[in-house]
Parts: sequence; structure tokens; C-alpha cells
Amino acid sequence: MDRISLLLTLCALLLTGCGLGGDARYQAGYAARLAGDDDRAFAHYQEAARSNDYPEAQYRVAEMFLAGRGTSQDTGQAISWFRQVAESRDPVWSPQAHRQLGLIYRGDHGRAYLDRPAAAEQFRLCAEQGETACTRLLVLLTPPSLQVSSASVEASPPGQAAVDLYARRAPSVYKIVVYAQLDAGLEPTSVGSAIAIDPYRAITSYHLLQAGGIPVSIDRRNDNEYVREADVQQWQVVKVDPRRDLALLVLDDPGRQLSFTNTIKPYERVRVGEKVFAIGAPAGLEKTLTEGIVSALRTENGVRLVQTTAPISYGSSGGALFDAEGRLLGITTKGVQAWGNFNFAVAMDEVQAFLAE
Amino acid sequence: MDRISLLLTLCALLLTGCGLGGDARYQAGYAARLAGDDDRAFAHYQEAARSNDYPEAQYRVAEMFLAGRGTSQDTGQAISWFRQVAESRDPVWSPQAHRQLGLIYRGDHGRAYLDRPAAAEQFRLCAEQGETACTRLLVLLTPPSLQVSSASVEASPPGQAAVDLYARRAPSVYKIVVYAQLDAGLEPTSVGSAIAIDPYRAITSYHLLQAGGIPVSIDRRNDNEYVREADVQQWQVVKVDPRRDLALLVLDDPGRQLSFTNTIKPYERVRVGEKVFAIGAPAGLEKTLTEGIVSALRTENGVRLVQTTAPISYGSSGGALFDAEGRLLGITTKGVQAWGNFNFAVAMDEVQAFLAE
Amino acid sequence: MDRISLLLTLCALLLTGCGLGGDARYQAGYAARLAGDDDRAFAHYQEAARSNDYPEAQYRVAEMFLAGRGTSQDTGQAISWFRQVAESRDPVWSPQAHRQLGLIYRGDHGRAYLDRPAAAEQFRLCAEQGETACTRLLVLLTPPSLQVSSASVEASPPGQAAVDLYARRAPSVYKIVVYAQLDAGLEPTSVGSAIAIDPYRAITSYHLLQAGGIPVSIDRRNDNEYVREADVQQWQVVKVDPRRDLALLVLDDPGRQLSFTNTIKPYERVRVGEKVFAIGAPAGLEKTLTEGIVSALRTENGVRLVQTTAPISYGSSGGALFDAEGRLLGITTKGVQAWGNFNFAVAMDEVQAFLAE
Repeated sequence: MDRISLLLTLCALLLTGCGLGGDARYQAGYAARLAGDDDRAFAHYQEAARSNDYPEAQYRVAEMFLAGRGTSQDTGQAISWFRQVAESRDPVWSPQAHRQLGLIYRGDHGRAYLDRPAAAEQFRLCAEQGETACTRLLVLLTPPSLQVSSASVEASPPGQAAVDLYARRAPSVYKIVVYAQLDAGLEPTSVGSAIAIDPYRAITSYHLLQAGGIPVSIDRRNDNEYVREADVQQWQVVKVDPRRDLALLVLDDPGRQLSFTNTIKPYERVRVGEKVFAIGAPAGLEKTLTEGIVSALRTENGVRLVQTTAPISYGSSGGALFDAEGRLLGITTKGVQAWGNFNFAVAMDEVQAFLAE
Repeated sequence: MDRISLLLTLCALLLTGCGLGGDARYQAGYAARLAGDDDRAFAHYQEAARSNDYPEAQYRVAEMFLAGRGTSQDTGQAISWFRQVAESRDPVWSPQAHRQLGLIYRGDHGRAYLDRPAAAEQFRLCAEQGETACTRLLVLLTPPSLQVSSASVEASPPGQAAVDLYARRAPSVYKIVVYAQLDAGLEPTSVGSAIAIDPYRAITSYHLLQAGGIPVSIDRRNDNEYVREADVQQWQVVKVDPRRDLALLVLDDPGRQLSFTNTIKPYERVRVGEKVFAIGAPAGLEKTLTEGIVSALRTENGVRLVQTTAPISYGSSGGALFDAEGRLLGITTKGVQAWGNFNFAVAMDEVQAFLAE
Repeated sequence: MDRISLLLTLCALLLTGCGLGGDARYQAGYAARLAGDDDRAFAHYQEAARSNDYPEAQYRVAEMFLAGRGTSQDTGQAISWFRQVAESRDPVWSPQAHRQLGLIYRGDHGRAYLDRPAAAEQFRLCAEQGETACTRLLVLLTPPSLQVSSASVEASPPGQAAVDLYARRAPSVYKIVVYAQLDAGLEPTSVGSAIAIDPYRAITSYHLLQAGGIPVSIDRRNDNEYVREADVQQWQVVKVDPRRDLALLVLDDPGRQLSFTNTIKPYERVRVGEKVFAIGAPAGLEKTLTEGIVSALRTENGVRLVQTTAPISYGSSGGALFDAEGRLLGITTKGVQAWGNFNFAVAMDEVQAFLAE
């Protein structure tokens, strides 16, 4: 009881502070909800919603129909109310309603309402109103698409190619540490790399995730050796392919966009002897650039592989192999345990097939 | 007795089938020989041979004099009869007789008749009649010859050199597996490489053969992972040089020609810092191309060595080190067991000395 | 007694042989000194010294004042006498006197007379009279100075750069073996490299010297595998920096000048992706050239490091990392113990800071 009083007080302060105020019925609903009385909250919200010019209340009603809180679950009613809010052109609630409709059509609330084109349309309308989270949802609705790119006309002067490529491509390669719950708490269990292929998703090696755990990347905003919580990004594993040793990750943080590379060179155009560059975190050494040539083109268990002399090591797994023009040739996956540099990358055609499956 | 009857029947069928037929005395000789009665066979053959227009019988007589079967051994008589066949211009037996005369003069039947120029002449006459086995015998009569080549005028555009070199040179490098008779049967005991230097012969590293065994290469005619018997080539070890770690191999199969590289760059023209390419089977990875530079020129136990950063590993032994123009610089032999790429190739001057010895 | 007689005889022979002769009092002093009678030697020398035209005697007097032999120690008197000899313009003794004055002002005989500019002046006057040992003393009076050099205008044709760089830079990189007194006598305890940065001094890695011992380099004057005593050079450790893993060495032999490299590229101009060359003695392989690129720029414990793919190994420590134009980028220090080439060099800015401290 004490806790609820405190919340109500806080809530009152907040409402005043944020200058919301206004509709007394809406506020009564809000107070009831905070007090845990969903039925009363729904009743108040519904009353407030009926006055057409109060989209926030309508949005709450839609939410409660969707969740079945304070009323029976009714996705049809939720859609109907969200539609009304969406059309309201209210700068705050209209994009949110489009987002909610997009999530319903994406299938988040049951396959009965699944309709991908409708979802895309809703996310697009939301994004058009400046909601970047909807841009992300729109992008995530379809698999990442890789572009086959032909050679650029202009070449860097000798000695400059690698410098330019690193400046251009290093930002799209991330060092990944997988944390798992061990006896001593969350502990790093493997280290590798990931190459971002659109603003929200990255490819990595399946074997890094094989034993479970949460993939995390660290993006220091300062030069300190000290890592702050805001520098740590969590990733979700969307799908995996053990045979091809591939996994698709999506960045958890909806407010963040990745540097990415989505131009590729298909396997059939890769030539033994051509110059390549690898970027990854061999032995944990973040954003390490190495160079070499294509040593051979091989197929192992039906998976097309590019063999290369570019040095990689544990920690390079999931990193990127580029051609001299910065196009993705493959995902660095493993080395042969022999003296020298005999390393392999999964061809981008395999990545394309994996994404299309 | 039953078996002989069967053979005679088979033989009659064969003769009919092949449309040989004709001379009854020759057939009687053939039957006697199959029946194991060499004396009677010789007598029949000799009778048939006397009619000058029957070279096949003359050839058999010559063979029997050479082997001392059905008559006393008499190489002089054999030569005399082979001569007659050779001059007969019979499209089948004349080249065979030239071949036999070549083998006699090569010394295969005693040093008394050894006469290399005469052997070369006979193989040449045989080869001129379209017998490819004689081309091979003629080539094998003299040691492989390596050509010192000066630099080509036209250079590949940067980035293209390695691609071109691989396309041109990879076919002349073979992966070698040495099989030895162990308790469990024929088992692979070492893996390495060999560089073909003429259509029938290749250089490899002595240390691969040190423990004995049969060197074998596999040339898949199809893309299957399954290897068929026809894909497997056996090699004979012609000579070895433990000090230089070199061995000369000749391909067993007389009907097969090798892709080869016989242009070399002499040691005195090799420069520390120049670009090099290695092709071999490091860790068994067939036709792997690696690149690097010449790190140093050294002499060890009187053997001239080219030190290089081009990655090699076990399995690269016996492979080829090329300069940027595809000339042989050395035979990759070993690496130093330290982190990084510190590898050695035996200079081609040592190969020349080995071949000339 | 017998031994002294022998010495006197020898001395007489020597004097005659060298054509010194002349002043009988000087000779008496010399004989007394050899006989171990410093007091009498000093008295004779002093008498001879008073005749102004006998600088050798004056020099001896100065020496004996400096050492306090045959008279009481008196650096002031020594300076006074050395001055007189220095001004004598005697071709043999004048430069020696300048050298002695330089050593006194350098602080070798107590801080009371320490005066670096005066020492430099004396060494300069000595060197001007053709005494190369004084050139060395003059150079050693100040820390080695490294020159920041901008890029040269003309570039080598592709493929030639490494060849030229090696020819130009390999002579300034020395293989160092550290010998320590073990039970079995003087034994090599570590092997590494050193890069000469002026005619008498070189930089190496501190960790090679960490356990003590005498650093030695071998410079074979002939192609024999046999090393002669004259081929062995000893080095003194002048100062060390464990944090930066650096040490400054000076060559013991005053009559020898080193090939050296003193042009550097500062850390801030080094770019990830640029071509680099390492020269050192990986695994003891003297003057081994390797190439690679800059993989990353890192700071570890406040020390700026250049990460590179150029292969190095134990024995490369203390060697040189050059850019494509032969400027020093760093002192190769260590590799990461992982498959492939992930190596580090201490940036030249750290070397400059170390020298300036």
C-alpha cells in the first residue's frame, strides 16, 4: 500500500512536471492502472477515448485490448482503436499506433493477423513520421540483402589501397564476446568477430555460439581502457546454420545503427591469386587488418570456401574477408592447424543462401 | 589340361575376333606357346619367320632369342631379327622392333650392347611411326633439362600477376602421397608435393621417400570426392640426393603426359626482397598458392637455399617456388619451427647439379 | 728481478725499433716506471717535461698527476700539463692530450670538473687532428638523434622496393647473442637483434638483457662458417627501459663504425594498411627480411605499439620495422602466441622519449 501511495505521488509529480494534465478521466485511468486496478483503468480510458480528440487514451484502450488487461483480449478491437489513433495524425501517438499495427501484422500477436506487406506499410508510415525505431522494424522485416557489385573503375595508387580499405571497412567489423552463466557468474566463453551487413544485423560464425551464451560487442566512446555500461551492446541470435558455420545476429539496442558492408563478390568471380584483406579480432585484437591472396577455392561438405593466406586466428571467426576493392568475399571461419597461413572463409554465396532460407 | 584347352579356345576366338588369322604356322606356334611348349613354339615361329612378309613371327623369334626361351639366349640374333622387322615398315611391328632395339642399346639387356646414341636413334624412328611410348623413352634417355630464362618483357598489371601465374603453373605441381606396406595393409605414410619438369618426370623432396614406400598422385578426372582407380598415378623413384633433399620421380603410366615447368632462375640472379609464389599441398591442401618475398640467401652444408616468407607447411615439401614471372626458383623443402613464416627452398642450381650427376 | 731485466731489454729494443730514443731523462723515467718505481719515474719525467719541446714527458707527468702515481693526485696540475701538450701541436701527443682533457671535462675524474661543452670542444680539437677515437667520444657525448624524414619523391618500381630497401637497410641491423656465465662457462642465453642508430650505438629490446649477460654481435669478415675472434664485437648496455622494452647499446670496439639508420616516421603518420618491412634474426636467422602491413595502432600500458603482419619470431626482438621508404617505424618486440602473424613493434616516438630521458 505504501508503495502504491508513493507511486501515485510520483505519478502526480510526473504528470505535472511533464505538463500532460488535461483530461481528468485519462488521469483517473492512469492512476487506477498504477494502483493495479486494470478494470477501473480500462473503464476510465475507454470513456476518455470516446472523445475523438484524445489519442493517448485511445492508444491505451487499444493496448489493453491487445494484452487482455482490464477487458477480454480482442486483437480486432485493438486494431480498430490503433487505426483510429494512427489516422489522428497526433505527432506522438500516431507513429506509435502504426508501429503497433505493424507488429500485429508482423505476426507478433498470433499468425491469424500475419500480413507482411501490411506490416511493412505500417512501419513505413510510422518511419515517415520520424520514428527511427520503425525504420529498424521495416528493415528487419525482410532478410538482409547483399548486393553483387562490379569492380569500381578507379583504383587506389599502390600502397594506398589497404589504407583506404581499412578506413572504409573497419567500422563494419565488430569484436564479439560471448558471455555465459557459469558458476562464477557471467563469464566470457568465446571471442570472435561479426560483420554488419545492414544497419541492424550482422553475420558471425555459428561455432562461437554453439555452447550458448549472449553475444556482446563493446564500442568504446572514449579512449579510456575503462569500459562503461553504455559502451556494451547486446545482440540476439536470429538464426543459425551449423553446416555452413553461420549465424545471423540482430543488435538489441533499437536506437543504434551499425556501420555495414553489403556489397559482395560472388564465388564464381573469385580468382586464385587475387589480393584479399581480412578484418577481425584475432586473439581478441580488435579491428586487426591482415592481407594475403586467395590460395585456393574449395568445397567441403557442400560448402564453398575461399582459402587464403591472410593471417587469421581464433577471434577472427565471423570476421570479414574483402577483395582489393572492399567487397565481401567471405566470412572468415577457421585455419588449418599447421605452421603458416592456411585459412578459410565461407563464400558469400553461402551467406546469401543462408539468409534466403 | 582343362585350363590349356580353355586358353586355346579363347585364343582361337581372339584370333578370329581380331582378324589376325592367316599364317597357319604362326598360329601353331602361338598355340604351342600358350600350351607352355616353348621349344615347339620357337620352331613354328622360326619357320613362319623365314617367309619374309610375316613380321609378327620374326618379332616373336627375336623376342625368344632375347629371353632365351625355346632356344639359347642370343642377343645378337635378337638384334638381327628385330632389325629385319624394323625395316619391314609393318605399321604394327616395325615401331615395336625399333623400341626393342632401343631398349637393348639403352642397356636393358646387358652393358655389352649399351650405345645411347643408337638407342636414341631407335626410339626416334619408333616415335616417328606414331608410337607415343617411344617419345617417352626418347625423353627419358637423357636427364631432364632446365632452361635458364631471362625476364619476359611484358608484365601483368598489378594484382593480376598472381592470378595468371596460378593458372599457368598450378597444373605442373602434383600432390604426392607415399604409401607403405604396414600391418594394416597399404597405408599413407607421408604427404608432399612434386613439380614436373618434363612430360614424364618430376622433382620432389628426398625426405618424403626416406622411409620407403610408393609415391602416388591423384588426378581426379571428375569433381566427385570419390577417387577412381584410373585417377591414381604411381611414380618410380629414379634417383635421390639426401644431402640436397632431392629426388627424381618418373611417372609409371607410359600413356600419360604431365604439365610441366622447366624454366628456371639461377641462384645468382635471385635477390633478397623479390616477390615469390609457392604452389604445393601444405597440410595436404592440394594446389595451394601462397606468396611472399625472398627473406635471405643462405648456404647450409654446401647446399644453396632460398629463404622465403611464402607460407609452406608439411605437405609443401617437394613443391615449387616461383618468381613473379613463373620461373622456378627452388624446391620448397622445410620451414623453421617458429611462429611466423621462415621457410626454405633448395635452389634450382642444386637441382641442376643433382640431375647432371 | 729477471722479469724486470727482460722488460728493460725489451723496452730498449722497442725504443730503438720505434725510433723514439732521444731524451735520456725521459728514458730513465720510462725505465723506472717499468721497474715499478713510480716516484723516481715521476722525478725523471718532470725534469724532461720542463724542456718545453718534449711533449711526451709532459704527457706522462699529466697522467701521473691524474692518477696520483709517484706524486699526490692533482687534477688541476694534470689539466695544466695536458693543456701545454695540447697546445704543442705535437702530432702524436697533442690529440691525446685533448682526448684526456675531454675525458676530464666529461666527468670521468669527478664531477668537480664536469663541463660538457668543454669536453665536446676538446674531443672536437682531438678529432680534427685525425683521431677517430675522438670522433666517437664526441658522438657519444650526446644522445643519439633520430631524424623525422618526409617521404622521398621518387618511388622504386613495383617489386623493386623491397630489394632496394634490403640492400640499403640490412647492414644496420645486427644479430645479438647474449652470453652469461653459467656453470659450463660463458654460454649464450638469448638471441635477438639490434638496430644501429648512429655509428657507435644501437637500440635493442630490454627483455633480451633482463637476465644479465654480455651482448655480442658477430660480423664475419669472410664466408667461412668458422668465426674468428676478430669477428666478435662486444657491446655495453648504456641504459634500459623495462616498461618500453628498450635498451641502448654502445659498441665496445672504439676503432669500428656501424652502418646505421636514423631516419624515422613518427607514430602519428603511421597508417593502418601501409606496407612495412622487418629485418632481424628470427630464430637466429641473421638479416632475415620479411614484409607485411600495419594491422593496427595500439597503446599498451601507455606505450605506443605498431601491430604488423610482417613475420617475426624470437630472435627478431630488437630488430627494425621499416616503412616502404626505409624509415624506421618501430623496434620489433614480440608476437602474440597464436597461429598467424600478429606482431608488435615499439613506436619510434617511444625510442625518442627513451633517448631523451
